[in-house]
Amino acid sequence: MNKIELKSLLTDQALGTPAGRIVRTLSERGSLSAAQLARLTGLAKSTVSTALSELRRADMVVEVGSDSGGSVGRPATALTLNPRAGTCIGVLVGQTEIQVIVADVSHTVLSDHSVSLEPDYPPEQAQDIVRQMIAEAYAGQWHSPAGLLGVGIALGGPVNPINGQVLRGGLPRWVGRDVRAMFGPMFDAPLFFDNESNCAAIAEMTWGAAQGHDDFIVLTLDLGVGGAIVSGGKVMRGIAGGAGEFGHVVIDPDGPLCRCGNRGCLEVYANFRPYLAEAEERFGEPLRVNDVVRRALDGDAVCGALIARAGEAGGRGLGLIGSVFNPSLVVIGGRLAMAGDMLMSPLSQSFERYSLIKREDVPEEARTVLKRSHFSENGACMGAVGLVLRHRRHETAMHLN
Amino acid sequence: MNKIELKSLLTDQALGTPAGRIVRTLSERGSLSAAQLARLTGLAKSTVSTALSELRRADMVVEVGSDSGGSVGRPATALTLNPRAGTCIGVLVGQTEIQVIVADVSHTVLSDHSVSLEPDYPPEQAQDIVRQMIAEAYAGQWHSPAGLLGVGIALGGPVNPINGQVLRGGLPRWVGRDVRAMFGPMFDAPLFFDNESNCAAIAEMTWGAAQGHDDFIVLTLDLGVGGAIVSGGKVMRGIAGGAGEFGHVVIDPDGPLCRCGNRGCLEVYANFRPYLAEAEERFGEPLRVNDVVRRALDGDAVCGALIARAGEAGGRGLGLIGSVFNPSLVVIGGRLAMAGDMLMSPLSQSFERYSLIKREDVPEEARTVLKRSHFSENGACMGAVGLVLRHRRHETAMHLN
Repeated sequence: MNKIELKSLLTDQALGTPAGRIVRTLSERGSLSAAQLARLTGLAKSTVSTALSELRRADMVVEVGSDSGGSVGRPATALTLNPRAGTCIGVLVGQTEIQVIVADVSHTVLSDHSVSLEPDYPPEQAQDIVRQMIAEAYAGQWHSPAGLLGVGIALGGPVNPINGQVLRGGLPRWVGRDVRAMFGPMFDAPLFFDNESNCAAIAEMTWGAAQGHDDFIVLTLDLGVGGAIVSGGKVMRGIAGGAGEFGHVVIDPDGPLCRCGNRGCLEVYANFRPYLAEAEERFGEPLRVNDVVRRALDGDAVCGALIARAGEAGGRGLGLIGSVFNPSLVVIGGRLAMAGDMLMSPLSQSFERYSLIKREDVPEEARTVLKRSHFSENGACMGAVGLVLRHRRHETAMHLN
Repeated sequence: MNKIELKSLLTDQALGTPAGRIVRTLSERGSLSAAQLARLTGLAKSTVSTALSELRRADMVVEVGSDSGGSVGRPATALTLNPRAGTCIGVLVGQTEIQVIVADVSHTVLSDHSVSLEPDYPPEQAQDIVRQMIAEAYAGQWHSPAGLLGVGIALGGPVNPINGQVLRGGLPRWVGRDVRAMFGPMFDAPLFFDNESNCAAIAEMTWGAAQGHDDFIVLTLDLGVGGAIVSGGKVMRGIAGGAGEFGHVVIDPDGPLCRCGNRGCLEVYANFRPYLAEAEERFGEPLRVNDVVRRALDGDAVCGALIARAGEAGGRGLGLIGSVFNPSLVVIGGRLAMAGDMLMSPLSQSFERYSLIKREDVPEEARTVLKRSHFSENGACMGAVGLVLRHRRHETAMHLN
């Protein structure tokens, strides 16, 4: 089998065959044992065994060593797709940065680079930068763009999943532009796209804090306030790509203007920009979110207090999530999450305060669990890689994967 | 086949057999053609045909005439479960009323009665009334409690789906009581339960405005503000039964006290009680929601204006739903919905105002559709019947059906 055949095994049509289901599952999950494959695909163990023999003979599937996990007995052999069978590109087109990650189909990251940009950079600049960064990522590597299985784009704002049009609320200069038209012609491979919060949710369920969870919510606290909803193992996109925009719930119709055009959105009250401005005034120098977090972790009381206040404010978003979803798990993302307990502790308190259902009223197993994101800054871009590995079509209106 | 056999065909174990899948699908949907059954069960037409022959010979499935739907050609025969094979009871335990509906398994309502009660009536009174109403419903009828397949309870407040405990936010005097312990011993049949908004969503997808929709939101506007979330054909319950409580999102932490114990909930601003008080003052007599709606429809300008203002306020809830879910469909329920365009028109305007994604920014097919509930007042109690017809276990934590 060659690279063309891997592509054909990753199509939706191939899901009707055991080999297609196994390849898709390995693509989604990375490394798995034969027993795990049987459970996840719903195929009989003997069917999995036969198909795996063929896939291994064709060099499509390889062993990656043993994973005994500390248990007694013969360790199960872990299998992955052959890393040489193909690559995936994930691109983050963020508010103030562009990031490109190239990974192979065994989930190994081959390169990861990012550049910082001024806010409101023009879309044309993004196209040039992405083209150049991808060329550099492949230059002098064993892997080549010929084995490219797909490109995932994580956008710093909402995008219509059906027609690819960028919507208000994230990247003002991109509103109305078609993501597919901008990036599609660069590649001879399928293009997948979604907003960065939904991509972060994909990353959490694939490699992060939500592994094994089919129902959870992501809340991101950073310069903006965003989120994602995962229900039944699928990311909810909304009819026009606007699901999970927790930051744009209107709290006060007469409040300050939000960058989305409405007034008094949650984001206006819970984003980190005002705290950053306060920090800059105190320290007399420009600071970024990471700087404030690092200083707080190093013991700086001023920065610690700012993060605690941001956590308290972010709790309004968490309270909203509590009353709307009463979820089993909320993963807190965004760069503020790197502050650990300094953020999580006030956030939990404010969640408890603003929630309808109080912890003391329900047994342990019926309480919402809050977890910090597994990722510091790579979540969204890794999720863009995940869009390709999960091979989910952008045409699907209500669900992403 | 006898009634025992219908019960056994409605178990989850029976879903592995063609007869079990057909019976469950007919139970959920009412009447269907053989072709519809094949599509919905995923079974081959020949398999459906064979199983249907057996089920008809056993008198479990019967023909209900033809449904040509205005199309040309031979009309398809519609099939239902034999009405005599069993009954279901739906009970609404609401804020100020108790309602009992008995229906047979072909979805025909056999009796429907309700009584009005003072707010905060004691749980013991509800037990007595329910027992008596059910006895009366069966008295002198051909159907008997012996054929009872299950009882569904729609509660006027959140309830923990795992342990049956009533939670804050709906029925203050019931908080901490176990629904299963209160109503289970009355019946020799399985008990199903959920809050009234989730039950209303079941009714909308089974018989109402959301037929054929697997993803939609319900927003109820009445003396309280409630809602439900349906994702992938399932009602989201939340880890402790608190999903869809849109009315208890905290808008202003320093706002007026809400009946749930928190301050400044959406319900405080968007419920109809203050408007009712205003109407009473104007007319000098006590009025109920229905009275105000009827007067408005009869052309009374004062009542019309109150409903328009309530619609504008309710739009905050709708805006919240827009930014959180960006749903394809929202069904507006509660007694205010009976006012028709007098409510829907200001509600749509305020939805547009508070939403992140504006109508003009997306093509027609990517716009949220708002529909009025199909039900005037029976929705929640019919949904309680639907809980039984869909035979969904209360043990399922995250999803109802």
